[in-house]
Amino acid sequence: MHDLVSQPIASGTRVGAVMADIRGRIASRRLAPGARLPSVREFAQALGVSKSTVVDAYERLVAEGAIASRRGSGFYVEGTTRPLSLQSLRPDLDRAIDPLWMTRQNLSCGPDVLKPGWGLLPDSYMPDEAVQRALRDIARDPDPAGRLRYASPLGLAPLREQIALHLGARGVAAEPDRVMLADSVSHGLDLVLRYLIEPGETVLVDDPCYFNFLALLLSHRARVVSVPFGADGVDVEALARVIAAERPRIYLTTAGPQNPTGATLSAATAHRVLTLAERHDMIVVEDDCFADFEPEPSPRLAAADGLRRVVLVGGFSKTVSGAMRNGFVVARPDWIEGLIDLKLSTCHSGSNLSAQVAHRVLSSGTYKRHVEALRGKLARDRALTLARLRACGLAPMLEPRSGPYLWAELPGGLDAAAVARFALEEDVLLAPGDVFSASRSSTGFLRFNAAACAEPRIFEVLARAIERAG
Amino acid sequence: MHDLVSQPIASGTRVGAVMADIRGRIASRRLAPGARLPSVREFAQALGVSKSTVVDAYERLVAEGAIASRRGSGFYVEGTTRPLSLQSLRPDLDRAIDPLWMTRQNLSCGPDVLKPGWGLLPDSYMPDEAVQRALRDIARDPDPAGRLRYASPLGLAPLREQIALHLGARGVAAEPDRVMLADSVSHGLDLVLRYLIEPGETVLVDDPCYFNFLALLLSHRARVVSVPFGADGVDVEALARVIAAERPRIYLTTAGPQNPTGATLSAATAHRVLTLAERHDMIVVEDDCFADFEPEPSPRLAAADGLRRVVLVGGFSKTVSGAMRNGFVVARPDWIEGLIDLKLSTCHSGSNLSAQVAHRVLSSGTYKRHVEALRGKLARDRALTLARLRACGLAPMLEPRSGPYLWAELPGGLDAAAVARFALEEDVLLAPGDVFSASRSSTGFLRFNAAACAEPRIFEVLARAIERAG
Repeated sequence: MHDLVSQPIASGTRVGAVMADIRGRIASRRLAPGARLPSVREFAQALGVSKSTVVDAYERLVAEGAIASRRGSGFYVEGTTRPLSLQSLRPDLDRAIDPLWMTRQNLSCGPDVLKPGWGLLPDSYMPDEAVQRALRDIARDPDPAGRLRYASPLGLAPLREQIALHLGARGVAAEPDRVMLADSVSHGLDLVLRYLIEPGETVLVDDPCYFNFLALLLSHRARVVSVPFGADGVDVEALARVIAAERPRIYLTTAGPQNPTGATLSAATAHRVLTLAERHDMIVVEDDCFADFEPEPSPRLAAADGLRRVVLVGGFSKTVSGAMRNGFVVARPDWIEGLIDLKLSTCHSGSNLSAQVAHRVLSSGTYKRHVEALRGKLARDRALTLARLRACGLAPMLEPRSGPYLWAELPGGLDAAAVARFALEEDVLLAPGDVFSASRSSTGFLRFNAAACAEPRIFEVLARAIERAG
Repeated sequence: MHDLVSQPIASGTRVGAVMADIRGRIASRRLAPGARLPSVREFAQALGVSKSTVVDAYERLVAEGAIASRRGSGFYVEGTTRPLSLQSLRPDLDRAIDPLWMTRQNLSCGPDVLKPGWGLLPDSYMPDEAVQRALRDIARDPDPAGRLRYASPLGLAPLREQIALHLGARGVAAEPDRVMLADSVSHGLDLVLRYLIEPGETVLVDDPCYFNFLALLLSHRARVVSVPFGADGVDVEALARVIAAERPRIYLTTAGPQNPTGATLSAATAHRVLTLAERHDMIVVEDDCFADFEPEPSPRLAAADGLRRVVLVGGFSKTVSGAMRNGFVVARPDWIEGLIDLKLSTCHSGSNLSAQVAHRVLSSGTYKRHVEALRGKLARDRALTLARLRACGLAPMLEPRSGPYLWAELPGGLDAAAVARFALEEDVLLAPGDVFSASRSSTGFLRFNAAACAEPRIFEVLARAIERAG
């Protein structure tokens, strides 16, 4: 087996550059085992090098065993073991702005590291007593289904009924049999993308957007295009231009307070987005995982569209628990049928235990009080954190009406990745803007989770990091 | 949007047949939106029809809007919304032998239906008391991580340490950092396939094999080839021929008592399989979810290979619980790194709650006694069920040494799908052989789960169904 990364590269030469290009395509599976390489003439033209340079590179790769020539029919990738490497799909990405590195760091760093940019709320913001009670109730339930048995294809019916009710309150009319449970919001989005797109197809995202959207789309090998998203939401003029030019198959966006900016959708924008989606036969996938943060629901695309070309995906990791992955997908009936097949074939069935916990917490008398208290706490956290950020010289893009996230620009055109590197030396893990930006145009921004910013040391470290980066 | 299924088809005509063929390719995404259709000449030749028939079919599909012609460059699939339909990937499959239908039926049928062919063990065979205790202990744990927090990238460390110990007892030497938790065995297999294969690549399975392998490979659009699997395990001569001829990228097989036959691997076969895998640069994926059923472990390919080209996937749905999906993947370190990236990008993180329950049950003093008692119960169940099957005229392929499954042939060359249809009329859901067979060569067989065969009515219904089908 060849380790493509450790092969000596004739670097600095044109032949070396061509070889490196091909190795990258093979490692990222853009050239799969057995695939035919471009002809020498085509490739020379595409790269702007001479044909002899390409011939030389191909011959050296044959000698290495990475590719093989077949008499009269060109060059082919050797059929050896070359797994899909997400890293090699974006080899140019600095780890400081790599969504996967971001997730790994946040999930694996120890308790000494402060994480003011990370998405999860602190334990004290979660309905722990209701979760404890749910676990005790499931333990003593005479029906052992939640403890022992596989879930049904759609998932626990009482939870789906609750979700349908919650959705109804946000104007999304969906019968419980159009709600399919998934193991998490990400899992729901993954199933939807798997159902609707092929590698190489174009997906449109907001810029900035939730950073794991970018990692997820990378794993689908989607072609990602983005549209500016600001204090008033998505830039609808830019949206119209990008859709007309790029013909994306899907627009992956968020409902409620957007991650990372905290901006919400207006009814006028919603109408405009749906009109464009209809005109260009584009599907909209709407991530609604922050629904319960909103005191008054902002417009949902799924509501206006009636779930014809909008798929809504949601979950409860922010308001119930992050430890027991619960998500759901709401879509038109024929798509739900196809999604069930995909779910059953790829993960067999969901977790009855997680669904039972979510159902019991949501139906407990205390959940409504919990989310109301949570909204109040987050409003106070946002106000305090905004003041502290301004004191450090940062300029918030807007003052969000709900949710934990704040999106703020560093002073003096500083690079957030550089500031984040200095902060990490002092055990503060920041979230630099370009992690969230498909076009890497948020270089000067940072995302903050106001609920994770109580510790004053965060702002001392931030101030020092800004000074060092300045 | 065009509903491909409901379009009127000029059935009975050659033009209609060509149109139906193309619609099927579009619905199953073998022809993706934007893809170029075969040239008229090529397609006419491939289907053995005249060019004018193909021209006629293409023109009608253009009129329908399913495809479009571009001047001078042929016909293309319209870029409209055509999701991946697993059903339409196998349109010829009778639902009685459709793995997806099988899973849906078993997961959704009511308590009145007896399921002697279904995989899960009855509640009374599960360590329910230990699960109840685990839930209570997690509820009162002063550390709320198992109730509230996201899991680490690899998953709960103490559970991975336990898994490493269990694997060591079966001869598989793996450090805990080579064990990655997944949400289920199926989810682990899905991640591994996603990491290692592309659509269209060839995967080899045993014939018969676990039916969800076939559904999973369908969702990956893998090309499936199979090799006969009998009372002595896989037919190694056939295996050598199939590998040489088909060059599969992966051999997906089972460790321990095979599902559905109950046969186990011998050391000699294991050596032969690994030698072939090395010679042909083939990866082996070994599903070890029945490990704890074996009193004495049979040989593991992962043990002999040292986890170089073998990936082992396991879980606990059969011996701990089916309600809280727990699985794991063990592989070489560089692959584990790539698998973590895929897991984080497609489902963000695993369930800390499920992992904590599994950890607590596995480390409870009662688990060892539980699995020992379970093995004894299953041995008695197998003996009783074998006797009852023989009394109905069925011939078991072998008498398995462990596990719940029995694989038995109907008398008189009867078709198991026909027998299953009659039995379903009396609310008994059987598992006909061809659900398990990629080549549909197990037409006369049925799988039984000896633990789910206590009810005498099953055999009364089976006897009647055999008589009616005879």
